[in-house]
Amino acid sequence: MFLVLRKWGIAAVALLFAALSQFAPVHAQGDPLPAWNEGKAKQAILDFVGKVTREGGAEFVPPERRIATFDNDGTLWAEQPVYFQLQFAFDEVKRLAAAKPELKGREPYRSVLARDLKGLTANGNKGLMQLMAATHSGMTTDAFATLVRNWFDTARHPTKQRRYDELVYQPQLELLRYLRANGFKTFIVSGGGVEFMRVFAEKAYGVPPEQVVGSSGVVKFRDGPDGKLDLFKEPKIEFIDDGPGKPAGINRFIGRRPILAFGNSDGDLQMLQYAAAGEGARLALIVHHTDAEREWAYDRKSAIGKLDKALDEGAAKGWVIVDMKADWKTIFPEAR
Amino acid sequence: MFLVLRKWGIAAVALLFAALSQFAPVHAQGDPLPAWNEGKAKQAILDFVGKVTREGGAEFVPPERRIATFDNDGTLWAEQPVYFQLQFAFDEVKRLAAAKPELKGREPYRSVLARDLKGLTANGNKGLMQLMAATHSGMTTDAFATLVRNWFDTARHPTKQRRYDELVYQPQLELLRYLRANGFKTFIVSGGGVEFMRVFAEKAYGVPPEQVVGSSGVVKFRDGPDGKLDLFKEPKIEFIDDGPGKPAGINRFIGRRPILAFGNSDGDLQMLQYAAAGEGARLALIVHHTDAEREWAYDRKSAIGKLDKALDEGAAKGWVIVDMKADWKTIFPEAR
Repeated sequence: MFLVLRKWGIAAVALLFAALSQFAPVHAQGDPLPAWNEGKAKQAILDFVGKVTREGGAEFVPPERRIATFDNDGTLWAEQPVYFQLQFAFDEVKRLAAAKPELKGREPYRSVLARDLKGLTANGNKGLMQLMAATHSGMTTDAFATLVRNWFDTARHPTKQRRYDELVYQPQLELLRYLRANGFKTFIVSGGGVEFMRVFAEKAYGVPPEQVVGSSGVVKFRDGPDGKLDLFKEPKIEFIDDGPGKPAGINRFIGRRPILAFGNSDGDLQMLQYAAAGEGARLALIVHHTDAEREWAYDRKSAIGKLDKALDEGAAKGWVIVDMKADWKTIFPEAR
Repeated sequence: MFLVLRKWGIAAVALLFAALSQFAPVHAQGDPLPAWNEGKAKQAILDFVGKVTREGGAEFVPPERRIATFDNDGTLWAEQPVYFQLQFAFDEVKRLAAAKPELKGREPYRSVLARDLKGLTANGNKGLMQLMAATHSGMTTDAFATLVRNWFDTARHPTKQRRYDELVYQPQLELLRYLRANGFKTFIVSGGGVEFMRVFAEKAYGVPPEQVVGSSGVVKFRDGPDGKLDLFKEPKIEFIDDGPGKPAGINRFIGRRPILAFGNSDGDLQMLQYAAAGEGARLALIVHHTDAEREWAYDRKSAIGKLDKALDEGAAKGWVIVDMKADWKTIFPEAR
């Protein structure tokens, strides 16, 4: 053995350490989920990962089938007082109107500037569609990503006073890492816009763009005003990745049924049903927002992130209901 | 060093070999592309991979941006005398009509059974839509995958007398492996049906389901006849991943611009344009079917895999035109 190593030389030793380091999290003696309090939820996660990765065990799942899907809003990061992407749209309207004052009298600008949400939604979804068209179309995909990046760098949450991409949940960051260290491929499956999420998901969650599934608008590859071919965002909805759209989106983008799914609202119910109904070991989890002090407390009657049917079905089917107040030692990561 | 290894014991040594083996292809002294003849095309590939992986080099690309997209029909496997998926549909029609003879007088069954392709396409695309509806909808996604798997196990190509999933190109299998060994993520971006391709792509190409982008029909998550929730294939086209749809599909599914794209027909033109127009090192390649003896020879006037505009634009822009007859030492892998 020693001779073999001598022959390989120093480069091989360096490679050895680099290569072995990737196995470290799996074999680490420490707690992989320090921001989770000891309890049923944490134990259910540890037990599940233990049994699906135990080679030769009755519930072993080969790595290529270790697919985990996470909702984003309210599951991986906060969603109050309004979905962060909606706040981005409001802020964009203000920025656009400041640059072009003649817009101020027109919808959706008038209602947003007057903080008149009732006016905005007076005609059902029409106002919201106008808002999305005004802020999420008419530019190249690259230009849109730059707008989102700039917004993250300048906007601050109104009550938490932090960057929006810092309002991610520390326990979930640990869970994502723990799953990946155990051979899982982690996906986001969210009602949020796919091109909005892709801007921050890789840095915030370690989830690359190709593992983000979301709602999308039509994008066309065509000549731009400068005659250069590029991808342009059109003011037309293509796909809503919510409710029954989630299993359809998972099938379309991933092509495999997840063995673990994590959500927080009735919009995640079908994703949870789909994951839970597969053969073999399955884990369905729900974040229940119960912590009015450190985060927010809301469920059955909330306009945002309503959790009603899924809470009942989860309780009936033995899904893991994560009680934020009791189960999470830490909510948000330390400020950078 | 020796002491450290003793402490780790045999398990660590086993891990060492397992871990190092994944680096082997990168450092192998042998030719990574033995089925490619020496020439401009092969050299262009080796040069490109060399420069984008050279750390500190001017054209280095970090691994997460090493995205390579491949068309499937005519690029990764053969497509003559008809697209293999179309042959699957014809064979399904025959199977269904044999089981239910009352179908025989109805379209698309009548035309397919009479080998009357003109009758099938008499009303433009209507006949083809009927064919796809009859063979690609009305069942769960899992049931469809089983039908496709059974077809691969029983169908044989009419002139090559081989399984269809053996009519993949050996040089491309080597290229896919070579790219992955150099940190690339390899994707299929094809006009073919995504649920058809996913059945064989992982075994045939080493490309997992979540890295297959293709055309799709609407899929709904709903109660089945047995009251069980499942994903059902509906008789409605959702997305055509061809022509300008390819860059749109890449954006939607992958969310990054590829640095390498490989096609063979005018349906790949926009994907090649999109990949080639990005910043930094880029490689666009086209398979030119020039080998009537070992495969097929066709281009500007072919009904299938027409290569006309892309051939001109590729020549003008310095894309790599792979001359199948001259550049490929082997076409298909050895029979299993």
